[in-house]
Amino acid sequence: MTEKFLIDQVKEKRSYLCVGLDTDIKKIPSHLQSHPDAIFEFNKKIIDATKNACVAYKINTAFYEASGLKGWEAMEQTVNYIPSTHFKIADAKRGDIGNTSSQYAKAFFELLNFDAITVAPYMGSDSIQPFLEYKNKWTIVLGLTSNAGSEDFQQQKMGENFLYERVLRKVSKWGNKENLMFVVGATKASDMSSIRKIIPDNFLLIPGVGAQGGSLAEVSKYGMNKDFGLLINVSRGIIYAGDDENFAKEAGRIAKGYQEEMEQYLNNNL
Amino acid sequence: MTEKFLIDQVKEKRSYLCVGLDTDIKKIPSHLQSHPDAIFEFNKKIIDATKNACVAYKINTAFYEASGLKGWEAMEQTVNYIPSTHFKIADAKRGDIGNTSSQYAKAFFELLNFDAITVAPYMGSDSIQPFLEYKNKWTIVLGLTSNAGSEDFQQQKMGENFLYERVLRKVSKWGNKENLMFVVGATKASDMSSIRKIIPDNFLLIPGVGAQGGSLAEVSKYGMNKDFGLLINVSRGIIYAGDDENFAKEAGRIAKGYQEEMEQYLNNNL
Repeated sequence: MTEKFLIDQVKEKRSYLCVGLDTDIKKIPSHLQSHPDAIFEFNKKIIDATKNACVAYKINTAFYEASGLKGWEAMEQTVNYIPSTHFKIADAKRGDIGNTSSQYAKAFFELLNFDAITVAPYMGSDSIQPFLEYKNKWTIVLGLTSNAGSEDFQQQKMGENFLYERVLRKVSKWGNKENLMFVVGATKASDMSSIRKIIPDNFLLIPGVGAQGGSLAEVSKYGMNKDFGLLINVSRGIIYAGDDENFAKEAGRIAKGYQEEMEQYLNNNL
Repeated sequence: MTEKFLIDQVKEKRSYLCVGLDTDIKKIPSHLQSHPDAIFEFNKKIIDATKNACVAYKINTAFYEASGLKGWEAMEQTVNYIPSTHFKIADAKRGDIGNTSSQYAKAFFELLNFDAITVAPYMGSDSIQPFLEYKNKWTIVLGLTSNAGSEDFQQQKMGENFLYERVLRKVSKWGNKENLMFVVGATKASDMSSIRKIIPDNFLLIPGVGAQGGSLAEVSKYGMNKDFGLLINVSRGIIYAGDDENFAKEAGRIAKGYQEEMEQYLNNNL
């Protein structure tokens, strides 16, 4: 997907919501659990109910791998079911030496036809480069994550700056705003302004709104740029909003709520 | 697998070799490429030919994911085929927030029955903890990797020390020598002594010998501890040693060569 297409979708849907499909077989409504394709059936209904309120879907690969072959198949089915108007993210946190990263890129960009993959930066340039080589595909590198463990290394000083700031600065030179995004945890909205000084142009994928407690208003205020530049992910808060036959309707209602709030912030920015 | 069992295997086989099954469908001998289970057939023959010379196998998940469902199936078949006497490593470089890492742990420790998984440290303690909770399973955390990109972040100073030294020091407190190993690139044998000062007791998984140019003699000299404490991985140098019908025999011959060299270093250490 091109950057222009993504921006056009944000304008059309009046939304920069990403719905996170962290589909855990144990957490889906009980009436679906015995279905032979339970994970895919659940995802299908969630996608149908939320697609008008969001511009992206994020598939957390761990939840699919935890069901083995069956889970991998559900991931394939799900990514194929997502409409071509929506940005498809493999939240896979991959990254390895060059010849290995090339294989991951092949798996997620060619075989599974995702638009984007999340990548961990610890192994440096040659672990990220193979992903960046694909035209109209996106590499989303971990900058500052929203979990407590981000304090162990990311938020430690490396010279004058924090490690995550060095990561943002250095990695941003390896790609451009048409193939590179960053993960920035929404629970740190106060850091958003300083992050935007380092990477003014790249899209940010923001987890941590909803279940993890980040504020949509603050993130939008300090994180939005002239291209909007934000994808806000909500997973559990949407997909597990209901736990009975009405789960999809409930998910759709919550997603619509986010979309309506986002519409205000977009209007402020136009 | 317990630490004692692993150490006993090193003593019995007179080897601390790990064979890396980075099986690329395009690189296996042409007579096997049309086989319906080409990857597994190749791996089976490599395992049969090398098992007396090594104590561990490392499956690089990227190469399997690059073949989609078929590849995931080959990974399952391969891990089930590896003898129970051998330490089974998923070289997966995973790591995410806690509830997601738990799903990866389930996938690799429960479903696939690996003994160990490699994990990236960037997201900190709660991304690593879920793996450490499994008894007699091992978490192998990236310390210093053998690729050029290790200079971008790992080998940058964080206060008085390099980032990778902070990772080794901090992560080593989250586990113990019975559930935690570290990846340390063999191309930096000169750093091995200082690494052993930080983590004297943990096993090290050492890539970079062979195709990547590390010296087995130096790594063994400076890296071995009283429990031996080393697993030296060789992938391409063994599995692609031959490219015709005799590929397995050739792989076995190279593996035996490593074993014989290792036997000398073990003798020096007894």
